Amino acid sequence: MNDLNQERSEMDLTNLHLLSACEAARLIRDGVISSEQFVEGCLARIREVEEQVQAWTFLDPEHALAQARTADAWRSEGRATGPLHGVPVGVKDIFDTADMPTENGSVLHAGRTPSRDAAAVTMLRAAGAVIMGKTVTTEFAYFSPGKTRNPHNSEHTPGGSSSGSAAAVATGMVPIALGSQTNGSVIRPAAFCGVIGFKPTHGLIPRQGVLTLSRTLDHVGLFSHTIEDIALLAEQLVGYDEGDPDTRPRARFPFVEAAAEEPPLPPMFGFVKTPYWERVDEDTKGGIAELIEQLAGQVEEVELLPSVIDAWELHRTIMEAEMAANLEREWNKGHDRLSEQLRALLERGRKVLAVDYQRARSRIEPIYRSFAELFEQRYDAILTPAATGVAPKGLSSTGDPVFCTLWTLCGMPAISLPLLQSANGLPLGVQLVGPRHGDARLLRTARWLAARVAVG
Amino acid sequence: MNDLNQERSEMDLTNLHLLSACEAARLIRDGVISSEQFVEGCLARIREVEEQVQAWTFLDPEHALAQARTADAWRSEGRATGPLHGVPVGVKDIFDTADMPTENGSVLHAGRTPSRDAAAVTMLRAAGAVIMGKTVTTEFAYFSPGKTRNPHNSEHTPGGSSSGSAAAVATGMVPIALGSQTNGSVIRPAAFCGVIGFKPTHGLIPRQGVLTLSRTLDHVGLFSHTIEDIALLAEQLVGYDEGDPDTRPRARFPFVEAAAEEPPLPPMFGFVKTPYWERVDEDTKGGIAELIEQLAGQVEEVELLPSVIDAWELHRTIMEAEMAANLEREWNKGHDRLSEQLRALLERGRKVLAVDYQRARSRIEPIYRSFAELFEQRYDAILTPAATGVAPKGLSSTGDPVFCTLWTLCGMPAISLPLLQSANGLPLGVQLVGPRHGDARLLRTARWLAARVAVG
Repeated sequence: MNDLNQERSEMDLTNLHLLSACEAARLIRDGVISSEQFVEGCLARIREVEEQVQAWTFLDPEHALAQARTADAWRSEGRATGPLHGVPVGVKDIFDTADMPTENGSVLHAGRTPSRDAAAVTMLRAAGAVIMGKTVTTEFAYFSPGKTRNPHNSEHTPGGSSSGSAAAVATGMVPIALGSQTNGSVIRPAAFCGVIGFKPTHGLIPRQGVLTLSRTLDHVGLFSHTIEDIALLAEQLVGYDEGDPDTRPRARFPFVEAAAEEPPLPPMFGFVKTPYWERVDEDTKGGIAELIEQLAGQVEEVELLPSVIDAWELHRTIMEAEMAANLEREWNKGHDRLSEQLRALLERGRKVLAVDYQRARSRIEPIYRSFAELFEQRYDAILTPAATGVAPKGLSSTGDPVFCTLWTLCGMPAISLPLLQSANGLPLGVQLVGPRHGDARLLRTARWLAARVAVG
Repeated sequence: MNDLNQERSEMDLTNLHLLSACEAARLIRDGVISSEQFVEGCLARIREVEEQVQAWTFLDPEHALAQARTADAWRSEGRATGPLHGVPVGVKDIFDTADMPTENGSVLHAGRTPSRDAAAVTMLRAAGAVIMGKTVTTEFAYFSPGKTRNPHNSEHTPGGSSSGSAAAVATGMVPIALGSQTNGSVIRPAAFCGVIGFKPTHGLIPRQGVLTLSRTLDHVGLFSHTIEDIALLAEQLVGYDEGDPDTRPRARFPFVEAAAEEPPLPPMFGFVKTPYWERVDEDTKGGIAELIEQLAGQVEEVELLPSVIDAWELHRTIMEAEMAANLEREWNKGHDRLSEQLRALLERGRKVLAVDYQRARSRIEPIYRSFAELFEQRYDAILTPAATGVAPKGLSSTGDPVFCTLWTLCGMPAISLPLLQSANGLPLGVQLVGPRHGDARLLRTARWLAARVAVG
C-alpha cells in the first residue's frame, strides 16, 4: 500500500461532505480522495437530509456519479485538471442545463429540457465541476415559494428565490452552489440559511442561458461556507460572453489570490441604516451594535443622500416593467397558471409607461455615484444587515428583501456573512457592500472581518 | 521668392473654397496655403451665398480666423500637426461647443452656452480642425424645419434635420461638416443637397455632449464632397468614450487607407426596394434602373423577410418613447413653445407602455441578423434610394425619411452618394448600406461605385 492509499484509508469517509470546495478540489487533485467518493459522500448527506429540507428539484444520483467517474478517469490518465475538478455544484433551476430539465419554478415550464447549457454552467464544466443537480427556485425566481424549508427550523422560510441553493449548501449537500439575485434572492436566503452569499458586480458573470427577469437587475450569485470557496468559484465564472450584453472583455482577475491577501491597513466600514431601519428586529440591531463596538474606530455611520430614498421605488418600476416584458409569453400563454403574486406584479408592470421606466433607469447612475464617492474617499466597504432579521416563520413568504434592493439596483458587489445568531438559534447575516468591480477587494475585506469576529 | 511662395502666389485664392478637406489639409501641411487663407476663402464663400442658403445659426468670422491663425502659428513653430490641421468644419447645432452657443434648434434652449465641447468636437480640435460655426438644425433635430433652404433651388427643402451642415458643404462654405441621424437626418439632406452623407455604425462615433433624442437610434453623421474626406473625418471621430455607453474600446481603424483600396473583386450589390417602393418618384425609379443596368450582373434584387415590414413601426415606438423620456424637461418647462409636430410626437411617446417599448427594442437584433446573413453570404452592400425622390418643394417639411428608417433602426452604416439627377436639375441620392462595423469596406465599395458611374 503506498502512502496515498494509506492516507485515503485513514480518512473518515462518512464526513466527506464537510469538506469545502477548495479542500475537496485539492484532495481530489492530489489523489487523496476520488471525485466519486466525494460526490457519494454528498449524495449520502442528501439521502439523510433532503426529505426534510427539500432543496432539489432535479437530482439524478447516477448522472452525478457518472460525471464524477469521468472526472476520475480523466485525472487517472494524467491529464490536466481544472480548479474545480470533480467538485459537485448545485445549480439553481433557472440556469439552463443540456443534460437536466430546467423548469424555472413554474408549471408553465414543466418538463422543459434546454438543448444548451447556460454560459455559467459551461464555465463550471470547463473548470471540471460535477453538476450535481438543479436546486429549488421560487416561481420564476420571484416571490412565490418553492418546497424548500429552512435547514435550521423547517417551520421557517429558507428565503428566496435561490432557496434550494442556499439550503443545499447550508446542510452540506454540496459545498458550493449557483443562485441569482434581482432584488434579494442570494443575500437573503444566504442570511436565513446561515451560509455565505455573494452577489458580484452587475455584468461580471454572464447570464446567457439564465431565465431573464430584468436585464438591468439580474445578477448571478454564489453560495458557500468559506470566502476561499466564493473566490474560487467566482474566478471560474467571471468573463465576457457575447450573449450577455452587460459583460465586457476584461483581464482575468485572480480572485483567489486577491481575496487571500491581508489588507495593508485595517479596513474602514461605512455603516448604513437605510430608510428601513425601523423594520429591523431587536436581535439584529443588538448584534450589529455589538459588531460595531468590536470594530471600534473602524466603523462610521453614513448618512445617505436624500435622493437615495427613491431607490426602492425606482427598483420596483424597473423590475416590474422588465419582468412584464420578459414574461410576456408566459402571461399570454398561461396567465391563469401564474401565482396570484406574480400575476399582480405583471399586471402592474404591464401598465408602466415607457417614460417612467426610462426615467427610473436614468436615475441609477447618479445614485451609484454618491456611493462611489464614499468608497473613493474613505470606506473599504459598506456594512449593513443582510435582512431585517432571522428567517420569518411560515413557508408562504420568503421574507423581506428591503436590505438588498439598493445594492442590486446599483449593481454593486454584496456579500452576506453568517456572523451573528439570534436568541432562537437562527442565523443572522451581516452584509458588506463594495464599489462596482471592487469584488475581489470586498472578499478580502470580508475575510478580514470574518477572522476578526471569529477571534473577537 | 522661394518655390513655395511662388506656388502660392500662382494659386487662385478666390476659389480656395473648392478644395476638399484632404487637399486643403495637405496644402496647409506643406505650407502652400495657410489655414487663415483657406478659412478666409470659405468665409468669402459664406458672404456670397449665406443670405440665400441660411446654413448657419452661429458664425463668428473673427473667432474662426483666430483659430486658423493659431493653427498657422502652431505649424510655423515646427510643431506636429493633426490630420485636419487648419481645416474648417461645420458643426450641427446639437453638438455642444464650449466657445459657441448650442441651441438645439429650439427657443427653449436659446442662449444656451455649454461649458464643455461634445466628445466629437474635442476629437476634431485634437485633429487640428477649425470649428467654423454651428449649422442649422430642425427643432431638437426632429421634423420642424429651421431657416435653411435647398442650395439648388431655394423654394425646396434642404432636408433635415442636419439641414445646415448639408447645405453648407453643398455650397462650399466648408468642405466637411458634422450632423446626426435618428431616422433620416444625414442621408436625406445629403441626397437633397447633392453631397455625400455618411451615417456610420451605431456606437462607432461617441455622442457625449450631443443632444440625446434616442440612445437606441441616435448616430453622429458626416458630410463632404468626396469619400476620401469622409474617411479622413471618420478616422478622427471613431473611438471609445466613457460618456457614450454604446461605444466600445476598439483598435483604431485606418479608414483612409482602407477606403482607398481597390476591391479584390468587383462588388456585388443587393438591391432593396423596401415596402415603400410605391412612394418613389419616376425620376428616381428611372435613375436607379439605369444604374442597375450599368452594373449588369453585379446587382440582384433582394426580397426582405416578412418580419422586416414591422421595422418602421418598431422605429416609431422606440423613437417616440425615447424622445418623450429625453425631452421630458423641455415638455414640462415649455410644452407650449414646442412645435405642433414635436408636441404631437411627445404626446404619443408619453403614452407608450414600457412593455411595448421593450418588445420593440428586442426585435432589432433578429431583424438585423437577417441582413447580416445577406452580407456574409453574398453582398458587399445593399443598394437602395436615399429618399423617395428629389427635395420636395416648400419649406414647411423636410421630406420623407422612409428609406433611412430600417438602416437606422438596425444601426448599420449607410452612405448617400449624389450619383443621379432629376429632370428638374435637383440631385438624387443613391444609398449604400453595409453590415455593422463594415464601415471602411462600405466606403471602399462606395468609392468603386462612384468611380464606375463617373466613367460609365
